[in-house]
Amino acid sequence: MYFSSGFFTCIGKDGKIYDELKYVWLQGRQVWMYCRLYRTMERFNKPEILEAAKSGGAFLQRFARIPNSGSPWKCAFCLTRDGKALKVQRTIFSECFYVMAMDELARVTGDKDMQAEAAQMMDQLVHWVRVDPSGLGKPQLSGDTPVCSMAVPMMLLCLVQQLTEARSGEEVDKYREVGGWCVKQILQHIQRGGTAILESVSSEGKELPGCEGRLQNPGHALEAGWFLLQYGLENGDQELQRTAVDKFMEIPFLTGWDKEHGGLLYFLDVDGYCPTQLEWSMKLWWPHCEALIAYLMAYSHTKEPVLLERFTQVYDYTFSHFSDAENGEWFGYLTQQGKVTLDFKGGPFKGFFHVPRCLYMCEKILDSILNKQES
Amino acid sequence: MYFSSGFFTCIGKDGKIYDELKYVWLQGRQVWMYCRLYRTMERFNKPEILEAAKSGGAFLQRFARIPNSGSPWKCAFCLTRDGKALKVQRTIFSECFYVMAMDELARVTGDKDMQAEAAQMMDQLVHWVRVDPSGLGKPQLSGDTPVCSMAVPMMLLCLVQQLTEARSGEEVDKYREVGGWCVKQILQHIQRGGTAILESVSSEGKELPGCEGRLQNPGHALEAGWFLLQYGLENGDQELQRTAVDKFMEIPFLTGWDKEHGGLLYFLDVDGYCPTQLEWSMKLWWPHCEALIAYLMAYSHTKEPVLLERFTQVYDYTFSHFSDAENGEWFGYLTQQGKVTLDFKGGPFKGFFHVPRCLYMCEKILDSILNKQES
Repeated sequence: MYFSSGFFTCIGKDGKIYDELKYVWLQGRQVWMYCRLYRTMERFNKPEILEAAKSGGAFLQRFARIPNSGSPWKCAFCLTRDGKALKVQRTIFSECFYVMAMDELARVTGDKDMQAEAAQMMDQLVHWVRVDPSGLGKPQLSGDTPVCSMAVPMMLLCLVQQLTEARSGEEVDKYREVGGWCVKQILQHIQRGGTAILESVSSEGKELPGCEGRLQNPGHALEAGWFLLQYGLENGDQELQRTAVDKFMEIPFLTGWDKEHGGLLYFLDVDGYCPTQLEWSMKLWWPHCEALIAYLMAYSHTKEPVLLERFTQVYDYTFSHFSDAENGEWFGYLTQQGKVTLDFKGGPFKGFFHVPRCLYMCEKILDSILNKQES
Repeated sequence: MYFSSGFFTCIGKDGKIYDELKYVWLQGRQVWMYCRLYRTMERFNKPEILEAAKSGGAFLQRFARIPNSGSPWKCAFCLTRDGKALKVQRTIFSECFYVMAMDELARVTGDKDMQAEAAQMMDQLVHWVRVDPSGLGKPQLSGDTPVCSMAVPMMLLCLVQQLTEARSGEEVDKYREVGGWCVKQILQHIQRGGTAILESVSSEGKELPGCEGRLQNPGHALEAGWFLLQYGLENGDQELQRTAVDKFMEIPFLTGWDKEHGGLLYFLDVDGYCPTQLEWSMKLWWPHCEALIAYLMAYSHTKEPVLLERFTQVYDYTFSHFSDAENGEWFGYLTQQGKVTLDFKGGPFKGFFHVPRCLYMCEKILDSILNKQES
């Protein structure tokens, strides 16, 4: 499965591969995760992990980038087993995970060309988001007014943190400006007088009409929460740290936790209408991963007992519902009642990313709590 | 809500409008349904129904067609309340429902220009499907080999039946050739030695690799079943009638009926893997509508008791789970266990179409059964 041929991610409940398509989001995330573990955790600093990451990176470099009329760079969303492009999205996310993978791999291998390629694609991403989105390939439609989706500044902020970590210089200053812009954009999603985090707002930071405007995604808000808290800590911004906890961690819990069955709901309408997403009431693994990171990180910095309670509550639900005692790994998709309803371990959107990132982050935070207590 | 301004379709459980977007599929279907009821059922031959249909048609003519670089005609998928295009799909379906609406409205009003417009768009559709799809706006990708989705010939066959009904002449002969081609295409979806109906096959009529190739959609197969049976009856093709019943009606029941909880599952994998669609195990209203039409139509022509049993079984499940005794209308989306999980009556994909078409078709078929018995 290694050796410059990318990774299968469609893996059944007992480990059997049920589809051979290669999703670029998941290829990039897997390369990033391998490198991060290799680089920062001694017990994963093993040649076979580095080899897997390098072969994944080679696959991405060779096949993920595709010819594109509007922009010099575009990545496919999905490739065949042998690397032929099957689908391309008119969004920025395939390119984002490409940047994450290339920059982290370059940190491990010291490959300066690869680092430069990541930086070049980052410039393209910033151009699409802040200057001109037309290269993404969406037709211009009269009713399609610009919408700010929280995913976009979140993803860019994540890349800024990736590209600036332990670096300095002119390029880093440029990214810091982008980071500040991302934070401002994310904070616009606090709406309804500070009582709601809405997934999409207008480009002026106002609530949008209809279902789109009323949509809440608790897992996404929690992920934004720990991104903001981390950024606030790095920059000594205490007000931002407070906002991250009070708004992006507390509100999604109060609105998104299912009081009857436990677990975080996937989507909610802020006015209590039924969302139109068929999966709105399902319990997905990744919001629970983000919640575990968010509450543990917040507790470790504030020592507020309520945050440890939140962590424990999410932990108990997660480990009693998602992890599979029989065959290992986590299931990804439960009914509202908590029954496994899609029984595969990996699929088009579930790869080697949210679960290992969550365990990795939580282990790091727990270590830091224990070390502080000892000293 | 009438008067050339189109129809709201996002209607909550108690009738309240929760979103004002106008979906072109549903606008076209609603116009078609009003006209069909007005034209063929005496108790609906009322001026207010005709007025509603005409105003919906005027809205579509004014706003649904949008400028398009690749082809002379393209319809939007979704419009704002005041008719501005918000989204356009790179498929044929908005245009198909536009043709259905315009042709049926022209039959009621006698508007020859409108009928010609429907015919002109039909030519465009056939060109996209049989000659050159590039005008739909999808980029050419090396791994994206042509796939035959059952929806495409089904939809075209439905339009052929719409455009040829009670007409004759050169144009009709042209459509009949298209109809024959559609039937052949649909029959290619019988796979695995006649034991499965697969949703997508290669352009050579072979099974595709992976999840896409293994996907079954029982509701869709049943809908194809009654389209084929109707076509077989109109053309005196007894073999096709038999295939429609034995393959497109019996197989989806044997594979798609949930023996534990009742109802038809939405998606299935022919090899028993878990589908990757999050909603695979849900019970949707429309497959049940198609099943009711299919089994009653098949029973009325064959008088085989098993088909009446199938009808009764689907009927019992449908009317005890989908219809809302409190506020009227049907719910659209249930969990596998049969609990309402999206409680609205109309949404982006549920409009005034599947339920009234089902009731209309079943009433017509029941009348014909009773009339035959009397004579």
